[in-house]
Amino acid sequence: DFQWDPIDDKAVDTARILAADAVEEAGNGHPGTAMSLAPVAHLLFQKVMRRDPSDNEWVGRDRFILSNGHASLTQYVQFYLAGYGLELDDLKHLRKWGSKTPGHPEYGHTDGVEITTGPLGQGLSSAVGFAYAARYERGLFDPDAPAGESPFDHFIYAIAGDGDLEEGITSEASSLAGHQKLGNLIAIYDDNQISIEDDTNIAFTEDVQKRYEAYGWHVQTVDWKKTGEYVEDVEALYRAIEAAKAVTDKPSIIALKTIIGWPSPKKQNTGKIHGSALGADELRALKEVVGFDPDTTFEVDDEVLAHTRQAVQRGQAEHEAWKQGFDAWAQANPERKELFDRLLAQQPPEGLEEALPTFEAGGKDVSTRAASGKIINAIAPIMPELWGGSADLAESNLTTITDAESFVPAEWSTHEWTGNPYGRVLHFGIREHAMGAILNGIVLHGNTRAFGGTFLIFSDYMRPSVRLAALMKAPTIYVWTHDSFALGEDGPTHQPIEQLTALRAIPGLDVVRPADANETAWAWKTVLERRNGPAGLALSRQNLPVFERGDGEAEGDTLAHARHTARGAYILAEAPNGTPDVIFLATGSEVQIALAARTQLAEQGVNARVVSVPCLEWFQEQDEAYREKVLPAAVKARVSIEAGIALGWRPWIGDAGRSVSIEHFGASADYQVLYEKFGFTAEAAVAAAKDSLAAL
Amino acid sequence: DFQWDPIDDKAVDTARILAADAVEEAGNGHPGTAMSLAPVAHLLFQKVMRRDPSDNEWVGRDRFILSNGHASLTQYVQFYLAGYGLELDDLKHLRKWGSKTPGHPEYGHTDGVEITTGPLGQGLSSAVGFAYAARYERGLFDPDAPAGESPFDHFIYAIAGDGDLEEGITSEASSLAGHQKLGNLIAIYDDNQISIEDDTNIAFTEDVQKRYEAYGWHVQTVDWKKTGEYVEDVEALYRAIEAAKAVTDKPSIIALKTIIGWPSPKKQNTGKIHGSALGADELRALKEVVGFDPDTTFEVDDEVLAHTRQAVQRGQAEHEAWKQGFDAWAQANPERKELFDRLLAQQPPEGLEEALPTFEAGGKDVSTRAASGKIINAIAPIMPELWGGSADLAESNLTTITDAESFVPAEWSTHEWTGNPYGRVLHFGIREHAMGAILNGIVLHGNTRAFGGTFLIFSDYMRPSVRLAALMKAPTIYVWTHDSFALGEDGPTHQPIEQLTALRAIPGLDVVRPADANETAWAWKTVLERRNGPAGLALSRQNLPVFERGDGEAEGDTLAHARHTARGAYILAEAPNGTPDVIFLATGSEVQIALAARTQLAEQGVNARVVSVPCLEWFQEQDEAYREKVLPAAVKARVSIEAGIALGWRPWIGDAGRSVSIEHFGASADYQVLYEKFGFTAEAAVAAAKDSLAAL
Repeated sequence: DFQWDPIDDKAVDTARILAADAVEEAGNGHPGTAMSLAPVAHLLFQKVMRRDPSDNEWVGRDRFILSNGHASLTQYVQFYLAGYGLELDDLKHLRKWGSKTPGHPEYGHTDGVEITTGPLGQGLSSAVGFAYAARYERGLFDPDAPAGESPFDHFIYAIAGDGDLEEGITSEASSLAGHQKLGNLIAIYDDNQISIEDDTNIAFTEDVQKRYEAYGWHVQTVDWKKTGEYVEDVEALYRAIEAAKAVTDKPSIIALKTIIGWPSPKKQNTGKIHGSALGADELRALKEVVGFDPDTTFEVDDEVLAHTRQAVQRGQAEHEAWKQGFDAWAQANPERKELFDRLLAQQPPEGLEEALPTFEAGGKDVSTRAASGKIINAIAPIMPELWGGSADLAESNLTTITDAESFVPAEWSTHEWTGNPYGRVLHFGIREHAMGAILNGIVLHGNTRAFGGTFLIFSDYMRPSVRLAALMKAPTIYVWTHDSFALGEDGPTHQPIEQLTALRAIPGLDVVRPADANETAWAWKTVLERRNGPAGLALSRQNLPVFERGDGEAEGDTLAHARHTARGAYILAEAPNGTPDVIFLATGSEVQIALAARTQLAEQGVNARVVSVPCLEWFQEQDEAYREKVLPAAVKARVSIEAGIALGWRPWIGDAGRSVSIEHFGASADYQVLYEKFGFTAEAAVAAAKDSLAAL
Repeated sequence: DFQWDPIDDKAVDTARILAADAVEEAGNGHPGTAMSLAPVAHLLFQKVMRRDPSDNEWVGRDRFILSNGHASLTQYVQFYLAGYGLELDDLKHLRKWGSKTPGHPEYGHTDGVEITTGPLGQGLSSAVGFAYAARYERGLFDPDAPAGESPFDHFIYAIAGDGDLEEGITSEASSLAGHQKLGNLIAIYDDNQISIEDDTNIAFTEDVQKRYEAYGWHVQTVDWKKTGEYVEDVEALYRAIEAAKAVTDKPSIIALKTIIGWPSPKKQNTGKIHGSALGADELRALKEVVGFDPDTTFEVDDEVLAHTRQAVQRGQAEHEAWKQGFDAWAQANPERKELFDRLLAQQPPEGLEEALPTFEAGGKDVSTRAASGKIINAIAPIMPELWGGSADLAESNLTTITDAESFVPAEWSTHEWTGNPYGRVLHFGIREHAMGAILNGIVLHGNTRAFGGTFLIFSDYMRPSVRLAALMKAPTIYVWTHDSFALGEDGPTHQPIEQLTALRAIPGLDVVRPADANETAWAWKTVLERRNGPAGLALSRQNLPVFERGDGEAEGDTLAHARHTARGAYILAEAPNGTPDVIFLATGSEVQIALAARTQLAEQGVNARVVSVPCLEWFQEQDEAYREKVLPAAVKARVSIEAGIALGWRPWIGDAGRSVSIEHFGASADYQVLYEKFGFTAEAAVAAAKDSLAAL
């Protein structure tokens, strides 16, 4: 079955030289790994993976993730050679403005790139999410097919380097991958013993293989240095990949011992070749070593390209064969096919609005986290693509779909949870960062909607993954509860102060902080109907009143309907006379303070409007007329009220504005005491309003 | 040597009941672990650790870190019983406003607490830093004493739970601890198989012991469940601790298999008892089980207290004995004693200003990272307590003290680095988060000054540790280079956009972004002279002009001396006529744009002042007169220029202000192209100034 001809060797050498030439042309970049991994990449793209270069969206494709994203040429060169749409000219424009070959692979920018990588650890951790999604989607569409016989069966391949293996996020995700017995995940660890500070012995001497055995992975080593000579024994790697594929109840890692920069005569096996161009002399010497013309750059033999571009026809044939199985499945599973089509079209289910629970005013107060839990459970029956869980805070985040099973192998069932490999409730353990990366992998793999919960304070632990979601416009959903110092007794280590502002600072992340249970319902609906980026719901621990609202806009003392949540900010309570002297902008649990202050001010003859601001990002998308209506430029007396720092509100309240805010860390006490001590009272809001009026 | 009497059992039961009573009184909290770990804590505080309850600052003390900080009662109850200063009344005020017993242990708030814990993984990871510091300080003061015979030899004890072991930061730090062969570190892993989502089998089934063996730790298991009955075999744990102490070339972890909430009859071994009060009935039942009066709360037998408070005299005697050794050392090592005294007094060395390099204007441009590297090396000879390194970016961050050895065992020397257990150059590998926690541990252990470098973008990876440093006012130093999109070709995954604002949002963190090489020198000096919290230096990858400056304040076209850096913001270039029409506020690499814009405006008859703002936090500390002088309230035409989002500048520029900023992710291209494409030019700054003037 394994065939490797001299033309493959030549293609590999071509790939190496192209990588070195491209970095030389750019003047900077990372040639070393792309050179030494060229045979690995050729093997994957030409001999192993089932992909159709002419259709990078083919659902049945094997996924490829380059976790060591700095070695982007590993991928770009294969995309060129195998006909994915890149051409030689793209390689010549490596790392240049507007090129398809940026420094790191960018999802949505270069066709065929499954995920943006570069921040180390993220790729391999998201690969675990890809493997989660592959299993979950199979469960949605084709749960009963024998293993390996479904059109929804495929593999996730990842290449990772030392940096990926050192990052903690990878440890978290790898522990989960072993726990989940993800037989569809195969990682190749480029064990080259070199990172930027040169020999990794200076900082990285653990036994990686043993560590992965401890996680429950299938671990193999392929040592290209074992003979004392460096022999790129591609067949040994191929056999290891085949063995990995055969192990269906464990993720696999293959530690491949390589020499970085091979066969660069002077710079191989050094930290220098990791991140710098070879230089003219060394590049010439390299070309001589592999028998290329040192006077030529970007040299590609026609015969080589003809050989490697056969990947297109081969891939199309595989795609066609797959389609027969897929069509048979579609015929046999019309309802599942309908779901499949809806997800492919990225459409929410019908009846979403009708499914939303309505929370009655005047009854018991409800925390927005409790409302969120009810909403998730109300939506779940009509939205099988909605799944999620928590980083070991299920009972606090209220993120559990209660009548569903847990997405873990059945043997990990406990007396609280029933495990099912196709289950719907996610358990991340106390691993927020891996949760973020896994969520990214899930939503990039297919079109299911996955959510993950933790305390808002621990958004800090997952921030790099959140940022990547925003950069990729990946529609991940975060359920961040305990969203202010009002979580109370756990004290300053657990009380978010700067988190809302710091999260809003991430371009493209929607931060949604609903004021009551009904806003929470409309917030969920809006998040689920959007797919253009990640969204985080900031939800209260403490109970909040459910506002008595009218059916339309705010008028007199009638509050606006919660559907206005989708606009990001809206007039919740109009100024008593219809013309505001001052405007309160408040979010979440502090909206009730604004309402109370409005009442107190009315008694003093001051007309205050209350604008509820569940999501500044959505509000910014509204047309100017709407924004002017909610926040008329002429009304400069404004007060923001939010249990966090004021900074983010400054553009909205202006020079005359005042903020009821907290500019220091919190404290351990019950939340009523903290509201008083930290000055979050209607009286303080009234004083701020008067102060703002006085500043005009 | 091991003695355990019936009174010890009674003290342990007293500790359990106090924990349960305290949570019941508070109405919420975490009783379960405090109950089941009571015998462990009693063993450590009464039988194992060398501590003097009457002097929590004793340099020779063993350190204790409760990584599972939610079990704060484990520590508080021992602090009460062993006479550290807490009294019964403090336990009765658990989790109450102003009490000494907040929800999580807080450094600087409760005497005896070595470090604030709660965010999981931080404590154990910082414990690694404590162990680093203990070794480094021994190297500074007493390098030649035989092992175990120096007054600077002591142990670091940590208790950690499942959550700590699951968090990725712990994996990073534990890998480093094994690599460093930290024989002075002993961790007890409370392996109780329960976290908030109940049985940890739902998310955590890896082989922890094997994983720690892979890291190179000495691993033991003490199983209190092994007989089928639960037997709190304290002696077995004691023997394991003794064995751990005897292994001096490896950190030790003891997996202690416990039952959470033991011996609560109905709630032991459940997720519920982790984080909720027992409730009246269960609390009564518990008291009956251990033979306490169910009608009494906070019951402490006088005999028990008399027994446990013997810890004070015992500790004082140990302290006294230690002091003899210390005095002998002091006598024999007068120079080292002088250094010791200076560090104890938290004083910087004399001659710091004189040691700073001066960078000549008009010569070659210098990146602020390169300047920083020169400054570190200039200061190093007079400041032996200054040590640090990078998370595998030494050549990029330029954080290496070049003539120093590396802080790793000699056997890990590579052809680039020479290892020495007392070395001064830190190598964190690609582990930014552990770097942050280890730095915290280092500066909390003693008074050395440690710094760690990475790219500014990866401050996101270390954010939870940075926040904890700020909360604790721990004077850690971060060297964050490649501080804007101007890092260029690596593209958006590596280009900070929102990071400066998001970091400034953390209360108590100084973010310092110097404009040129000389500001960098004064920034380092200022950071080293301050000890009241963490500071991060944001430094450029690209070369920047070294400004030609005068000796005093700005006047005419003469720029101000760089010493003004310490004031956080200063008039770098005065308006040409001395009266500004418009003020530029700029930082770092963008200050040169402000200067160019000032010149262009002058040609057009507009008088612009340039304020360099290396550190907003320092500027906010200045008196109002100074602040008014730099930014007169009357001058409302203002323009901020910083290669990041504008948000943080809004309070400083006001409604009429304009910002030259970037509000979206970056791109892969060289930095000159990006400056143009992203509108960071003198022309854009001039236009913004005119726009601001027009808005008045």
